[in-house]
Amino acid sequence: MPETIKLATYLFKRLQQQGVDSIHGVPGDFNLTLLDYVVPAGLRWVGSANELNAGYAADGYSRIKGIGAIVTTFGVGELSAINAIAGAYSERAPVVHIVGVPSRPMQENRILVHHTMKDGDFTRFAQAQALFTVAQERLWDPRTSAEQIDEAIRQCLHHSRPVYIEVPVDMVSAQVSAERLAQPLQLIQHEPTRNQDRLITRVLDKIHTAKKPIILLDGESRGLGIVEAVQNLSKSTGWPTYVTGFAKGLLDETQPNFHGIYKGRFGEDASANFFKDADLILCFGPHFSTTNSYGNAALPNPQTTISFSHNETIFQNQVIRDAPAKYLVPKIIQCVDTAKAKEVYAIYPDLPRDITIPFSEVPADAPLTHDRLWKVVGNFLRPGDILMGETGTSSYGSRIVPLPLHARYFTHVTWLSIGYMLPAAQGAAMATQELIKASKLDSIKNSRTFLFIGDGSFQMTTQELATIVRHNLDVIVVLVNNNGYTVERCIHGKDEVYNDISAWNYLKAPAFFGAGDDSYTATARTFGELEKVFDDEKLKDGQGLRMVEIFLDRDDAPNGPLFDYMEVQKAGNGILQEKDEDA
Amino acid sequence: MPETIKLATYLFKRLQQQGVDSIHGVPGDFNLTLLDYVVPAGLRWVGSANELNAGYAADGYSRIKGIGAIVTTFGVGELSAINAIAGAYSERAPVVHIVGVPSRPMQENRILVHHTMKDGDFTRFAQAQALFTVAQERLWDPRTSAEQIDEAIRQCLHHSRPVYIEVPVDMVSAQVSAERLAQPLQLIQHEPTRNQDRLITRVLDKIHTAKKPIILLDGESRGLGIVEAVQNLSKSTGWPTYVTGFAKGLLDETQPNFHGIYKGRFGEDASANFFKDADLILCFGPHFSTTNSYGNAALPNPQTTISFSHNETIFQNQVIRDAPAKYLVPKIIQCVDTAKAKEVYAIYPDLPRDITIPFSEVPADAPLTHDRLWKVVGNFLRPGDILMGETGTSSYGSRIVPLPLHARYFTHVTWLSIGYMLPAAQGAAMATQELIKASKLDSIKNSRTFLFIGDGSFQMTTQELATIVRHNLDVIVVLVNNNGYTVERCIHGKDEVYNDISAWNYLKAPAFFGAGDDSYTATARTFGELEKVFDDEKLKDGQGLRMVEIFLDRDDAPNGPLFDYMEVQKAGNGILQEKDEDA
Repeated sequence: MPETIKLATYLFKRLQQQGVDSIHGVPGDFNLTLLDYVVPAGLRWVGSANELNAGYAADGYSRIKGIGAIVTTFGVGELSAINAIAGAYSERAPVVHIVGVPSRPMQENRILVHHTMKDGDFTRFAQAQALFTVAQERLWDPRTSAEQIDEAIRQCLHHSRPVYIEVPVDMVSAQVSAERLAQPLQLIQHEPTRNQDRLITRVLDKIHTAKKPIILLDGESRGLGIVEAVQNLSKSTGWPTYVTGFAKGLLDETQPNFHGIYKGRFGEDASANFFKDADLILCFGPHFSTTNSYGNAALPNPQTTISFSHNETIFQNQVIRDAPAKYLVPKIIQCVDTAKAKEVYAIYPDLPRDITIPFSEVPADAPLTHDRLWKVVGNFLRPGDILMGETGTSSYGSRIVPLPLHARYFTHVTWLSIGYMLPAAQGAAMATQELIKASKLDSIKNSRTFLFIGDGSFQMTTQELATIVRHNLDVIVVLVNNNGYTVERCIHGKDEVYNDISAWNYLKAPAFFGAGDDSYTATARTFGELEKVFDDEKLKDGQGLRMVEIFLDRDDAPNGPLFDYMEVQKAGNGILQEKDEDA
Repeated sequence: MPETIKLATYLFKRLQQQGVDSIHGVPGDFNLTLLDYVVPAGLRWVGSANELNAGYAADGYSRIKGIGAIVTTFGVGELSAINAIAGAYSERAPVVHIVGVPSRPMQENRILVHHTMKDGDFTRFAQAQALFTVAQERLWDPRTSAEQIDEAIRQCLHHSRPVYIEVPVDMVSAQVSAERLAQPLQLIQHEPTRNQDRLITRVLDKIHTAKKPIILLDGESRGLGIVEAVQNLSKSTGWPTYVTGFAKGLLDETQPNFHGIYKGRFGEDASANFFKDADLILCFGPHFSTTNSYGNAALPNPQTTISFSHNETIFQNQVIRDAPAKYLVPKIIQCVDTAKAKEVYAIYPDLPRDITIPFSEVPADAPLTHDRLWKVVGNFLRPGDILMGETGTSSYGSRIVPLPLHARYFTHVTWLSIGYMLPAAQGAAMATQELIKASKLDSIKNSRTFLFIGDGSFQMTTQELATIVRHNLDVIVVLVNNNGYTVERCIHGKDEVYNDISAWNYLKAPAFFGAGDDSYTATARTFGELEKVFDDEKLKDGQGLRMVEIFLDRDDAPNGPLFDYMEVQKAGNGILQEKDEDA
């Protein structure tokens, strides 16, 4: 008789094989027995304060480790997480969402059980989840369940997007094949075609004849698994290399040909003109939402761009379907004549780079302002650190901070759900801790996660500070207190009550959330104070959660779209007048 | 030319006419211009810390005032609220969910805007919301929008369930008929039928010939608008009257013929036997989920029960469709021969009632335990107060507390989403404040909202304490610290790590959330300490938020299903052993 194992064991061990070492989630009565198998499978149970936060954390974890997973309970739990799942879909974060659901007999008998609409319909939640996942598996039959799990994980990795697995209570301990688990998960394979071979030749021809080429990396490259290839291309050719906001943190920013984020008219003229004059822009993993493209200002010229996506290549306006980046990009890069490519920029163009300025260049008593703040943040960073900027002023601001080697960075670029970043920081810090433990983060032995987060965002998901404390993660939270939703004030209603928030005593957070009264907290209102705080050994070399509250003017925004919007708001709020007519 | 007003004004004024005086929600870039019209329409903007909390709060508000409303933003905002909306659907709380969505041209041109999946599809979120609402209106045409708003609100009130309204940014200031707003909203009308008249006669015949009748009120009665009629029936007949957990707080519990919640075998034998012997059980607004019916233990005998629902009457096992309670119940009760009915119980049966015991009957140094705790809580309550027990031990425990006149009570009975109660308490307290201000809560001048909430639940939505503080609501939070998810420990995994939570310093919450360092906090571990705390003037007659942390044993549960489950858990956890096989 072939050996069998329990379904739950299969599920968790299979996830572990793909790199999941911690499961986020919240217990609920339909997933309790399932959770019995998490720790025995060798995984860590995180236990977030709520399911939305668990979902955000798994997303953050997946952006560092390449896959994440959450377990929620039927109805109440999974619906609370759905915004996080939709965000993972939008921004291609590979998260496996496992839901413990009522037993098969309970469902088949349409029992009017709790966590339902009390109408015998058990399908509504799965219908909702299907809108935001690339695969859905309902494990109803032990004979097919292991294969279904494999298929879900396969789709998750293939699309780098969330999938949904329902585990009925009575299926948790169903027996499935142990032999299958011993075989590595079969990923989706690629079948080369003649069309693709022709395309490779055409692209190489363009590369080898280009006079002014640019490399532009966007964030979908992460899920496509082509970042390393592009990094090699950038290094071997020495061609000017840019990223988008979505891709920041994926490339080595210490390289001399790295020029930060391409921002179109929101960046410096030299870069914008260089893009205009380019005769070839190699664009990898494009993700041109209006926000990631700076309101379409940073779209590369389609006439000169070849872009490589999940399953299509756009060759200077010609869309070639079924030409996947994952297959093509490494092939192409492998064949580049690097000696020839290197000759293209015999004289390297004069292009701007993001810079860090020393504190000595800023008056110590100058109040913190966005125009200077992000230029000094780089002083604090070390190799291997993670920098994160929450949606809003911190996201835009943090994009100009040059990163040291092996540092990582991410921010929402399209989903823009405020509140995301604190749980995501927890997930990212935990993922990094695991990578270091497994010696998978080069030679990095320590990594601090720096989160810059606005007050309004912080209020949304504040309780995840407790998860950071509980797991003693190396996280420095910089609370940007600017008195409300400044990002919304930039857009509309600068002085309106709905953009105000309640007044918290933010630095009481660590003690409240269990960090102990001696937990490190500090305040900074000026650049001098900021320098002092970040030079404090208890902050820079401390353990666990550290928290710093910095104060910025309510209506201050970093250069870029938000700054421009705010200028319009400051010039006069047309809506207020219009509103009065009906009042 | 007929007078017109802006669409947003129409919407908010229409809501105000139905009793909405405060709008919960969170700003987002697609609802900002919409929010400009909230305060000018005479409404209060609440500004919750996140959208799930806003949804829960609007639900709590609606249970006190008969309608509630939230405004969220497209995608990220509305999805965060969806669990609350689904809960409102499940438990028939009438909440109008208004979502600010991208402009019509933006949608029609499939712009790859933020808060989307970046695929030009703007319909996904509405599809998800449609699963949990009874009406959905997309305001796309000024000529029909006012009517669509009316229809949504009408359906919301008719079903006492949530509805969904999408307002594109460019529709906010569209002009609609002012005249329409001057006419009261037309509610769904009832057309009497001969069938229904015959049914009235049949029911009256049963009522007039009953020898052992019982009145049983369930919670759907609230949305059906029949509570007052049933209260009159109970008073005028003097018949023994019971409620379910869902209906607790709707009737006057000081009446001599009120006997609390019918719990079947989980209650006292005298009540269970009385139900068995009854020859007529008049059941109003039944909601027999497994949880509200104590695992089906408290279902009235179908042979002797006539139950009145939204659109059907079940006459002793015969289902009569299109026989709505809202029409039938007042008609029937009006025609009851009360003189005759009063004679039925010439000798009133000896039936148990919930009681409050004085503190003098409990040793002052006895540690707090569920078996006694809920019997002393009644000592604290005053007429007009609200008592709330969060899902878990507090929900089951609080159900036996006898309520003074005009006191209100509610708890989740089917949706059971932990975390619901703190925001719901905020909403309920605010609604009550408004009722008092409008002299609509009888002669009540003050009302305190007592929330008993477990530590695990509290962690889910803790930030709404700040909203309570910000609006200076009269709320007493009793944090039941029992070291984790005791409700889950009762069900499975008593000692498992996944039922643990992070250790917070709960009483630091008020100061953290802005209540000021002098905000009232206290601790109680024994009954003596509890008495002292609740007798403290600063607590009982204080202002704004007060918070008390009480300690209960991790594995203690109130009598009822949870206690029984815990006994099974204590007897030995079979799963642990089974689990080891694979480990």
